[in-house]
Amino acid sequence: MELSTPLILVNLKTYTESLGERAVKLAKIAAGVSKETGVCIGLVPQFTDIHRVASSTEVPLFAQHIDPVQPGRGTSAILAEAVIEAGAIGTLLNHSERQIRLVDLEASLVRATEVGLKTCICSNNQAVSSAAAALGPDFIAVEPPELIGTGIPVSKTKPEVVTATVETIRKINPKVIPLCGAGISTGEDVAAALQLGTYGVLLASGVTKAKDPEKVLMDMATHAAK
Amino acid sequence: MELSTPLILVNLKTYTESLGERAVKLAKIAAGVSKETGVCIGLVPQFTDIHRVASSTEVPLFAQHIDPVQPGRGTSAILAEAVIEAGAIGTLLNHSERQIRLVDLEASLVRATEVGLKTCICSNNQAVSSAAAALGPDFIAVEPPELIGTGIPVSKTKPEVVTATVETIRKINPKVIPLCGAGISTGEDVAAALQLGTYGVLLASGVTKAKDPEKVLMDMATHAAK
Amino acid sequence: MELSTPLILVNLKTYTESLGERAVKLAKIAAGVSKETGVCIGLVPQFTDIHRVASSTEVPLFAQHIDPVQPGRGTSAILAEAVIEAGAIGTLLNHSERQIRLVDLEASLVRATEVGLKTCICSNNQAVSSAAAALGPDFIAVEPPELIGTGIPVSKTKPEVVTATVETIRKINPKVIPLCGAGISTGEDVAAALQLGTYGVLLASGVTKAKDPEKVLMDMATHAAK
Amino acid sequence: MELSTPLILVNLKTYTESLGERAVKLAKIAAGVSKETGVCIGLVPQFTDIHRVASSTEVPLFAQHIDPVQPGRGTSAILAEAVIEAGAIGTLLNHSERQIRLVDLEASLVRATEVGLKTCICSNNQAVSSAAAALGPDFIAVEPPELIGTGIPVSKTKPEVVTATVETIRKINPKVIPLCGAGISTGEDVAAALQLGTYGVLLASGVTKAKDPEKVLMDMATHAAK
Repeated sequence: MELSTPLILVNLKTYTESLGERAVKLAKIAAGVSKETGVCIGLVPQFTDIHRVASSTEVPLFAQHIDPVQPGRGTSAILAEAVIEAGAIGTLLNHSERQIRLVDLEASLVRATEVGLKTCICSNNQAVSSAAAALGPDFIAVEPPELIGTGIPVSKTKPEVVTATVETIRKINPKVIPLCGAGISTGEDVAAALQLGTYGVLLASGVTKAKDPEKVLMDMATHAAK
Repeated sequence: MELSTPLILVNLKTYTESLGERAVKLAKIAAGVSKETGVCIGLVPQFTDIHRVASSTEVPLFAQHIDPVQPGRGTSAILAEAVIEAGAIGTLLNHSERQIRLVDLEASLVRATEVGLKTCICSNNQAVSSAAAALGPDFIAVEPPELIGTGIPVSKTKPEVVTATVETIRKINPKVIPLCGAGISTGEDVAAALQLGTYGVLLASGVTKAKDPEKVLMDMATHAAK
Repeated sequence: MELSTPLILVNLKTYTESLGERAVKLAKIAAGVSKETGVCIGLVPQFTDIHRVASSTEVPLFAQHIDPVQPGRGTSAILAEAVIEAGAIGTLLNHSERQIRLVDLEASLVRATEVGLKTCICSNNQAVSSAAAALGPDFIAVEPPELIGTGIPVSKTKPEVVTATVETIRKINPKVIPLCGAGISTGEDVAAALQLGTYGVLLASGVTKAKDPEKVLMDMATHAAK
Repeated sequence: MELSTPLILVNLKTYTESLGERAVKLAKIAAGVSKETGVCIGLVPQFTDIHRVASSTEVPLFAQHIDPVQPGRGTSAILAEAVIEAGAIGTLLNHSERQIRLVDLEASLVRATEVGLKTCICSNNQAVSSAAAALGPDFIAVEPPELIGTGIPVSKTKPEVVTATVETIRKINPKVIPLCGAGISTGEDVAAALQLGTYGVLLASGVTKAKDPEKVLMDMATHAAK
């Protein structure tokens, strides 16, 4: 369950293709590919599936979000302690589909650190990445929103966005590990992302909606392992 | 797992006292009291705990919230299908700690109905209850926000708010079942709530933070059964 | 500056075509058409333009939104008192481009009533209209969001949505005056809206982006006057 | 109307004491003090008052907020062009009473730059200030939220927060000018703020609710001028 780079992080979003028992199945596939290739593959299941998946596999799990709340009130809030308790080791923050206030982003990082969750801030461009880097998360995944879900890889279409972001992150806070998101669906896309200076990818439909997720993951992990 | 009235609905919020395995333990206590008294006791655990609790007991479970999204995109959204899949049979909506837009409330009711989730809209006053009733949920729980978490029962302090709300709901939509929330912590509070025309209670800290939750639940269920 | 029905309410949104001095000019045109036809034409300018327009014409003005705040803190909130002070006599609430929480909608109506502002809740469908009617605003404007800004009039394309909404509003609260929005751009659209049982229209681009707003307003007012 | 440092920026919030004609009066007082002392005093009126105040005085005005929208749709949004048109030369962003999403903060800075508005990001702590600095606004005002409106000056109570923030901002982006907010109500507070390395203050009730605003402003400006 240790995180390592290169990292392939698969966001299950709210896809029914990767819901409930199907999330467990995908996690087992990921575990197999990871074992065979030595490349770390993490999953980002729905909140309701974290414990179920964590109980069945050793795959590192991220939550899709946490809220900057303390235990107690806060009906429906995603508590950092609850995410850990369910078996996650990290969390996305500020995904393009759940963008949050700067003040909450900072407070969520504090909460994550308090409970020992790794953090991956999602960012839509270079400027936002620089602000995110100043906050000191573990990872920043840059994802131009117009490419999400398209299958058009940012690593190929907008390589300059990726390299500029990698450079910015390095300048502001060299401890932060840059990832590449948006449109990644093949091993080649992963290889391109790594060549641009990132240490992994954040993707979703490329795996969750694939006819043969194992084949896709194997292709990605193989390229990442090179 | 059938819902019936009088109903005691216990919101576990983000209390660590009722997180993870402690939610399972509380659910088993609730199941025991329910069996002994014949009074329906439901739990409203954190999202990450729904499946865990549902796998261990027969207690009816509500989610704390759902989002009006369709499966697919919507990272971190609470999908109606995911809540059902995890084992819940219903959901709170518009809790005072997660108040939502009118348009989303209406759309969430549609989504809940599509997947077969019961719905309980929380309301802070008579006017909001009338709007909620017009939308046709299964339950409306009226909770003056200034009393939440205080141990001061609305059924005793502001009985006129409860009776006026019950009357309003009946007038707008007689199919909607009124519940009474805020400050309920004893069997007497429950009895008072029922005498005011409601069919049950929504409560939280009165049970989750009780030294002996079983004793409190037994007291409440016994009063409700009379 | 008295409101009367049939009412033509023109939302200036954030169009630059109706910003600043151009809002004043449009208000003068509206005043002229209103005087000539006897049909009430109101404008809904940007907040920054309310005082400027109110100082120059007698046209009834609505704000685009108010917040349910009391005077004091609340930097950037739209204070009911400020809107009145600037010269508006009413406010939109819950426009499809600024949908608000049910609890805030109710509280904003209370605030509007406290200061004497007329209220027009915007609604996207029949169910939301029924909830809105239960809250007792002065007007409800039903606007299927998919038609907004299209020039495809709801009064022609989805007459059944309009009539069902009119009927629902009448049943829940007969004092509330139904208006028809979305896609209204000609006098015929206005006539169709009135024939379906509404007492006026809420529109935007049909006037603000018209080559000759006076001609369009005259066409609408003439049809409304029949 | 030129901005210069030291800068005293007075946020009128939604105080009725500084609404409408009273905002104009306060602006004239500020103009007088500014002229006499040579210290720049800016006002941050409600949106509805910007044009009114700008038409009557030469005092530099900031909006309390802008939204990252383009002209067009966006009913009730605060359009950058509208704020300029009304007579403002700058805008606050992310005030503690209107905290915004990181992505919107970045996009609002872009919009402000496009139309030529100066920007002042409000920040609640050092970490948020570092992220804000990375985005490159003109000013950052650090305001520990627990001190806002208390009359307890951050410059005296938490000088280390101010100096650490000033240092952080300088490191991340030396072009950004740090201001000091929260609890400033006397000339001494202003002097303390400047000694800690800031170039001015952002305050509200200390002036707007003062019995004699002119006296307070004169005290502040005199200390700032030293």
